[in-house]
Amino acid sequence: MSDRRYVCQLAHNEQISQVFLASEKQLRPNRNGNLYLQLQLSDRSGAIAARLWNASENDYRAFENGDYIKVEGNTQLFQGNMQLIASAIRRARPDEVQETDFLVLRSDEIDRMATRLAEILRTIHTPELRNLAECFLMDADFMAKFTAAPAGMKNHHAYKGGLLEHVVGLMELVLAVAPRYPRLDQDKLLVGAFLHDAAKVDELVYERDIAYSDDGQLLGHMVLAITMIDDKVRESERLSGEVFPKPLVTEIKHMVISHHGEYEFGSPKLPMTLEAVALHHLDNLDAKLASFTQLMVDCPNVESNWTQYHTNLGRKLYKGAGFRVQGSEEI
Amino acid sequence: MSDRRYVCQLAHNEQISQVFLASEKQLRPNRNGNLYLQLQLSDRSGAIAARLWNASENDYRAFENGDYIKVEGNTQLFQGNMQLIASAIRRARPDEVQETDFLVLRSDEIDRMATRLAEILRTIHTPELRNLAECFLMDADFMAKFTAAPAGMKNHHAYKGGLLEHVVGLMELVLAVAPRYPRLDQDKLLVGAFLHDAAKVDELVYERDIAYSDDGQLLGHMVLAITMIDDKVRESERLSGEVFPKPLVTEIKHMVISHHGEYEFGSPKLPMTLEAVALHHLDNLDAKLASFTQLMVDCPNVESNWTQYHTNLGRKLYKGAGFRVQGSEEI
Amino acid sequence: MSDRRYVCQLAHNEQISQVFLASEKQLRPNRNGNLYLQLQLSDRSGAIAARLWNASENDYRAFENGDYIKVEGNTQLFQGNMQLIASAIRRARPDEVQETDFLVLRSDEIDRMATRLAEILRTIHTPELRNLAECFLMDADFMAKFTAAPAGMKNHHAYKGGLLEHVVGLMELVLAVAPRYPRLDQDKLLVGAFLHDAAKVDELVYERDIAYSDDGQLLGHMVLAITMIDDKVRESERLSGEVFPKPLVTEIKHMVISHHGEYEFGSPKLPMTLEAVALHHLDNLDAKLASFTQLMVDCPNVESNWTQYHTNLGRKLYKGAGFRVQGSEEI
Amino acid sequence: MSDRRYVCQLAHNEQISQVFLASEKQLRPNRNGNLYLQLQLSDRSGAIAARLWNASENDYRAFENGDYIKVEGNTQLFQGNMQLIASAIRRARPDEVQETDFLVLRSDEIDRMATRLAEILRTIHTPELRNLAECFLMDADFMAKFTAAPAGMKNHHAYKGGLLEHVVGLMELVLAVAPRYPRLDQDKLLVGAFLHDAAKVDELVYERDIAYSDDGQLLGHMVLAITMIDDKVRESERLSGEVFPKPLVTEIKHMVISHHGEYEFGSPKLPMTLEAVALHHLDNLDAKLASFTQLMVDCPNVESNWTQYHTNLGRKLYKGAGFRVQGSEEI
Amino acid sequence: MSDRRYVCQLAHNEQISQVFLASEKQLRPNRNGNLYLQLQLSDRSGAIAARLWNASENDYRAFENGDYIKVEGNTQLFQGNMQLIASAIRRARPDEVQETDFLVLRSDEIDRMATRLAEILRTIHTPELRNLAECFLMDADFMAKFTAAPAGMKNHHAYKGGLLEHVVGLMELVLAVAPRYPRLDQDKLLVGAFLHDAAKVDELVYERDIAYSDDGQLLGHMVLAITMIDDKVRESERLSGEVFPKPLVTEIKHMVISHHGEYEFGSPKLPMTLEAVALHHLDNLDAKLASFTQLMVDCPNVESNWTQYHTNLGRKLYKGAGFRVQGSEEI
Amino acid sequence: MSDRRYVCQLAHNEQISQVFLASEKQLRPNRNGNLYLQLQLSDRSGAIAARLWNASENDYRAFENGDYIKVEGNTQLFQGNMQLIASAIRRARPDEVQETDFLVLRSDEIDRMATRLAEILRTIHTPELRNLAECFLMDADFMAKFTAAPAGMKNHHAYKGGLLEHVVGLMELVLAVAPRYPRLDQDKLLVGAFLHDAAKVDELVYERDIAYSDDGQLLGHMVLAITMIDDKVRESERLSGEVFPKPLVTEIKHMVISHHGEYEFGSPKLPMTLEAVALHHLDNLDAKLASFTQLMVDCPNVESNWTQYHTNLGRKLYKGAGFRVQGSEEI
Repeated sequence: MSDRRYVCQLAHNEQISQVFLASEKQLRPNRNGNLYLQLQLSDRSGAIAARLWNASENDYRAFENGDYIKVEGNTQLFQGNMQLIASAIRRARPDEVQETDFLVLRSDEIDRMATRLAEILRTIHTPELRNLAECFLMDADFMAKFTAAPAGMKNHHAYKGGLLEHVVGLMELVLAVAPRYPRLDQDKLLVGAFLHDAAKVDELVYERDIAYSDDGQLLGHMVLAITMIDDKVRESERLSGEVFPKPLVTEIKHMVISHHGEYEFGSPKLPMTLEAVALHHLDNLDAKLASFTQLMVDCPNVESNWTQYHTNLGRKLYKGAGFRVQGSEEI
Repeated sequence: MSDRRYVCQLAHNEQISQVFLASEKQLRPNRNGNLYLQLQLSDRSGAIAARLWNASENDYRAFENGDYIKVEGNTQLFQGNMQLIASAIRRARPDEVQETDFLVLRSDEIDRMATRLAEILRTIHTPELRNLAECFLMDADFMAKFTAAPAGMKNHHAYKGGLLEHVVGLMELVLAVAPRYPRLDQDKLLVGAFLHDAAKVDELVYERDIAYSDDGQLLGHMVLAITMIDDKVRESERLSGEVFPKPLVTEIKHMVISHHGEYEFGSPKLPMTLEAVALHHLDNLDAKLASFTQLMVDCPNVESNWTQYHTNLGRKLYKGAGFRVQGSEEI
Repeated sequence: MSDRRYVCQLAHNEQISQVFLASEKQLRPNRNGNLYLQLQLSDRSGAIAARLWNASENDYRAFENGDYIKVEGNTQLFQGNMQLIASAIRRARPDEVQETDFLVLRSDEIDRMATRLAEILRTIHTPELRNLAECFLMDADFMAKFTAAPAGMKNHHAYKGGLLEHVVGLMELVLAVAPRYPRLDQDKLLVGAFLHDAAKVDELVYERDIAYSDDGQLLGHMVLAITMIDDKVRESERLSGEVFPKPLVTEIKHMVISHHGEYEFGSPKLPMTLEAVALHHLDNLDAKLASFTQLMVDCPNVESNWTQYHTNLGRKLYKGAGFRVQGSEEI
Repeated sequence: MSDRRYVCQLAHNEQISQVFLASEKQLRPNRNGNLYLQLQLSDRSGAIAARLWNASENDYRAFENGDYIKVEGNTQLFQGNMQLIASAIRRARPDEVQETDFLVLRSDEIDRMATRLAEILRTIHTPELRNLAECFLMDADFMAKFTAAPAGMKNHHAYKGGLLEHVVGLMELVLAVAPRYPRLDQDKLLVGAFLHDAAKVDELVYERDIAYSDDGQLLGHMVLAITMIDDKVRESERLSGEVFPKPLVTEIKHMVISHHGEYEFGSPKLPMTLEAVALHHLDNLDAKLASFTQLMVDCPNVESNWTQYHTNLGRKLYKGAGFRVQGSEEI
Repeated sequence: MSDRRYVCQLAHNEQISQVFLASEKQLRPNRNGNLYLQLQLSDRSGAIAARLWNASENDYRAFENGDYIKVEGNTQLFQGNMQLIASAIRRARPDEVQETDFLVLRSDEIDRMATRLAEILRTIHTPELRNLAECFLMDADFMAKFTAAPAGMKNHHAYKGGLLEHVVGLMELVLAVAPRYPRLDQDKLLVGAFLHDAAKVDELVYERDIAYSDDGQLLGHMVLAITMIDDKVRESERLSGEVFPKPLVTEIKHMVISHHGEYEFGSPKLPMTLEAVALHHLDNLDAKLASFTQLMVDCPNVESNWTQYHTNLGRKLYKGAGFRVQGSEEI
Repeated sequence: MSDRRYVCQLAHNEQISQVFLASEKQLRPNRNGNLYLQLQLSDRSGAIAARLWNASENDYRAFENGDYIKVEGNTQLFQGNMQLIASAIRRARPDEVQETDFLVLRSDEIDRMATRLAEILRTIHTPELRNLAECFLMDADFMAKFTAAPAGMKNHHAYKGGLLEHVVGLMELVLAVAPRYPRLDQDKLLVGAFLHDAAKVDELVYERDIAYSDDGQLLGHMVLAITMIDDKVRESERLSGEVFPKPLVTEIKHMVISHHGEYEFGSPKLPMTLEAVALHHLDNLDAKLASFTQLMVDCPNVESNWTQYHTNLGRKLYKGAGFRVQGSEEI
């Protein structure tokens, strides 16, 4: 691998001169009239706070959030949190950047998941559902975005390829769980799992930083999916020469718009079919385990059994006495 | 007018032999092994409970809810509520039915409102919005349903033409109120008022009794509207040969899906534009005044200043000392 | 099999003379001064309402809820619901009762599940957890109750053996799902799944009818489990001669008391460990799929795509166009 | 007009020497042991943050919030927000202050609105209601406060004359909307609109800064209005020599105490009359449109289509692509 | 005492011919076309359901709710509940009625409590508060109503004199508890306890049946109290020739309007003073203990340890194994 | 007494050289690259903020929160709040510390309360309850913790001995109030008051700073109490040679687990017995009065009638015009 010092490997008082991904930059007033620059530096292994003292508007404008930047500086353990005091920051030259250092998922991993996605979708027996899935798979533009998008702004799977990872993981859960419930229609459930978050490709903007699009904020991915499904149903009818059963379209849309499970989480309808109920709970299970794990792994209180208090969860999480950040040695 | 005794005119101990609209029929067991038939009889002026003692399964199956039936019987004031004890019930012959006795809105009233609808929509200056509105107006199938549909299952405007009445009323409110707020875009707001409930034409089934369609229950009129708007935008682009501005489509859809104003009432997004906020509050104002008025007018406690307790409102309504059912003389 | 007409097989106008399980008996006043007896009759395939006209206090006192009774009578399709008009009712003689007609789960099925329970628990690697599980398995009194108890008053698994069925099903889910999440401790999770509802053996009384015990109502099964776990931990320490790690006891208790997942459902703590979160969501998934399925199967609106409105769920359920009660031919 | 540079006109790096209204002053510790003064400077066009480095307790005590102060300094664009770095601050001499520069509403505008208020109130036909309104209009002390008070602490109409502006605006809405609902008693509704916030004259203190009075916090304007109405009813009876109908007093009070529409917003009763419902919704409409507009206009994110996230609203607001701060050229 | 059989003494199959207080009368249709009369019969010891078969409109109109009626009939234990099958009912003659049989509180008890009320109020040291209390005590009209009114529609103290009983009980609690908290102003707290429910004399109508007045429903006793306090403050100023301190009036009003403690229970303000907090909690304690006790005593499930489920409380109550209706022997 | 200047006595510009208890220490970055130390200094009379400019990591590590430290410095009145600018800080030598200066409760006060606790518990007549209480009193280890523990993390009684003070205070309330309600079982209620918070001895860690233990966070004091009660019941049975009545254990546990009164405050069951209801309300009364008083006394806005806004209470508190910090002269 590269000789890079990954963020999760940094120790106290290391001399650093390497490339990071920049975000959350702020120019803040020193009360003596001086300014300093504060920002986040990240790579695939995590993120660290950095400061450049005595900065200027020019320093602030020299790069954008989402840029790769070359940073000179020194690490400092400060009350249990590691930070980096930068002495120089500039935009990195393309030849200085090793993309794989910054991607949580390597492109071969993404490829493997995309293949698995197609594989699972082709196990579907119901002809209309299989045709519909095929129309999505054939849409190169959609698939390019679907394999690149994150699954969210923060919390679980908030990185390039995160949407694909979440969806394939969920479909594997469907394959493991559905056979235990004979009345569940596995085909419908697989299509639901595939499409439930599909319109996140348009809800979010994620070329550099992750953010909501205007459409995403005003309509949301559940409503955006309606148009997406209508388009592909029309195409599927055109290709097959047969009318797609309207009640089946309705059931697919119902799974999508009800998958948050409660009005207060933006679902305009509660799950009313067995498959919609199963989809909601499986999605919830996967999302909660992913985000709780992440909160424990990312927790900066290294010496405590507990994470900090998370207001949106209404609790601290218990990492336990023996909690170690697994896999840090293999990044 | 007809020599009919309208429901709202019936007094104690009248001999009745005329046609009513039937609904909510139930065959219930008498505890001696006998059965009786209970049902609602209505005409355009209101509804009255009726009972046929010693009924049979045959009586129960002799007509459907939503049928016109000929009823013989006697009225009875029973603890402040009027009811009708029927001695005979049969399905009415077509020649016995005077349709206008059963329509809250006469067809000329509906025509006048449809004309007014088109008139208001043609005041729109923004070309794209006006074209879009035109596409709806030109769709004879849509307009037939739009002028026939009720605005809801119960509460306000739950009768043929009720949707049109509510929508035109709301658009008149827009015309009266919007000029007072210079930043409100009256054109957008008029389109929002026109389309906010438009998919109720598919959410409800209302040929005889009013009920929810499967699509209506699984998706709801706010989500159904998305497909409807997409279709007409495509048509408008085809007719005009120009691309419809995508942000404008988004704002229209946003007004529609946010018009219930709160997550708990099934809006997947809260109103975020001035027009969406205005639409929500004007719709709410009109709906609340209409339903409160109806609850007061329909209230069977004739001798009390108060309606009964309405659980969904969390209160009784105060009709006041001088409350009279206005217009009963003119029906 | 027996020549019995199972409840789910009964059609209109059948002459019946066989044994049923009685419940919900009520003596109700006829408004002529006569009384009639109303009750539920059930066997393993379902339940049917019955009435005995002109009944007396003696008829009412002739048997208890939970008794097997011999019923003579006639079936009647009444507005889409089947009911039975009884002409004679008496307590059944033991030799008239074929127990297997009344058990949803046959004793060999229960035995098989009990064996599977032990089998799964013996896959546990952590010695202390395995010893603890063993202490429960060795407690013949506990196991007798654990294999006999229902999982609830109503909704899912509300029948003899239902608790065991729910728990083994949940443990199978754990085996299928846990390997997908490397940080989950499968051993802890299996113990959590085993014990989360274990104190339902004391929360409920279920020799005949199912009801809550005084302890069950005043403390609930989550609090009752604390004493149960303390007892077995002490026993396990006595047998092994080693101190059971206190933090491990705490984590087990935490899984149990937090498994309802929210304060409003009676959990005094929210899930704060990965295993507690996983247990809550898997339990929820299994319980919801079981109860939604049951509501669809038991739904008396045979001709509708929809179940009735369930107030506690805040919705109707969509059975779909092609919904059939599967397996009725095999009971 | 004056040669003043209004706050909304200030650009980067302007030399400033003029009078502002001071508020929110704070003396804050510099971490070198030095202090600096932070405050808000405003005029009728808006507000701007200012700082005086190396300040002393004397600087802090040299003026009060609500005072006019003379400020020397320099403007600075700092990360998209304009601020003013002051070099000197002192209390302004009376002859330096041009009151009209600081009033959102000029006194002739206030006079015109007061005239309009009286005009509308004199359209009331119900003699008792008209007499009651007259008693308020004749009370010079009340009218002085009523025309000077703001309508709230922040959000909508939070400036001198804001209460009058909100009330007259609301009464104009009543005149536009009431005729569309024949059962609404326009006279009652006008009195309700006039009095619903009238006790804000005592709830708030607003000679300089706006704040709550002790009475305002302990009782609130809805309860304070009761005493105010009782007083004027007594006066009206004294002047007219006739007993004011008690039920009419009750209905007026009911409109006032229920106009927040929900218990959680401090209404001790829900609206139970048509007029109370109408008042609540019209007031809500006007307040929401005013505050949303203000949040968009005041939004400092000049380059974004979105305002910041407003926690109390639970959302960001969409200003739209073409949003401009209208009227800044005419202040 | 009288030779009356009190309601709480009635056993199965007693021949009854005596006077009761009538309430909740209903004429209900028998499904053979016959009618029967259903009503509640009560005396000071409790209430019992009664039925008169084959009744007519005349029977129904022969008396009003709240009348004393003479009833002939027979008691019947019917599924654990005692009921009375009447053979004849007529309005009672005055000479047949022994008022004391129907009053929960005898007039000497009421007198004693009224005396105690005055006694406690005269312990107040703060001159203004003592004068204010005196103004209420001197108002014969007020005191007549205050000693006659119930404390509520149902639940606790819903009988003649119940308001006085609750208030004096609460003031005794104040005397017992206040000295334990040195910062509590006992004088203010006593006045708060005295006046918190005082306007119930106008909120309720209670000459015969207890019901809400129009004022009570539209304004509520907390708002009605404002006018009452204003009146007495004016009178107190007139009598003493001194101005009543305005902040003290405000604190008294604040205690009254905040004593329900939460917005959702109709308090427009939350308790913000120590005395308001103390009043809320003491009132709550007394009300809850009184109503829980009453629900246990009145519980008709004589053979169960549990009351029925009370929806508004969200629970059943546990009467316990040894629960006896104490004092039934002394009525 | 000592010649110490207590925190609550400090005035502007005093030279200080004495011992304080340290807490909430933070080393914070000065934006010039310098660091400063911020901390709280407290003694039994209150707490004051302090700063040491130009501090180092060594200064930060020189002592722990919970240590006694010797501080040199100067007091400063800064915008109404007193603070201390330290020039030197070091850990105090044992001989410099006068423990009684730092204890809110002196050991003789604690002893007196412990004696009173035993005294009250010995008034219990029910033999089993008295034996049970005795088992707790005899457990020296438990009593040592019970008399040392605070009653909470913050708010009311958050200091050494605070638990004992709260419990004894509550039991005194029981003695004062219970006799007023004849159906209340005073013995049960006393035991409930004694044990309701007893497991706080294990829920909290309080040797130096107060914090939650792992058990405390994962199970909470209500669940921890179950094990504690089971242990003592076993011991009581062993000592008395008699079986403790199981229903009585259940009632005691029920009081404990329901004493927070609502699901959302972590009670897994609502109070269902009279004693449980009484315990909840009395505990609430005492806790609310204690914490409101503390918030008023500790309020740093010396010149205002109001405390700051307390988000968790949803309100400011009104200290009133005449509010003085009583007893500051007697500390």
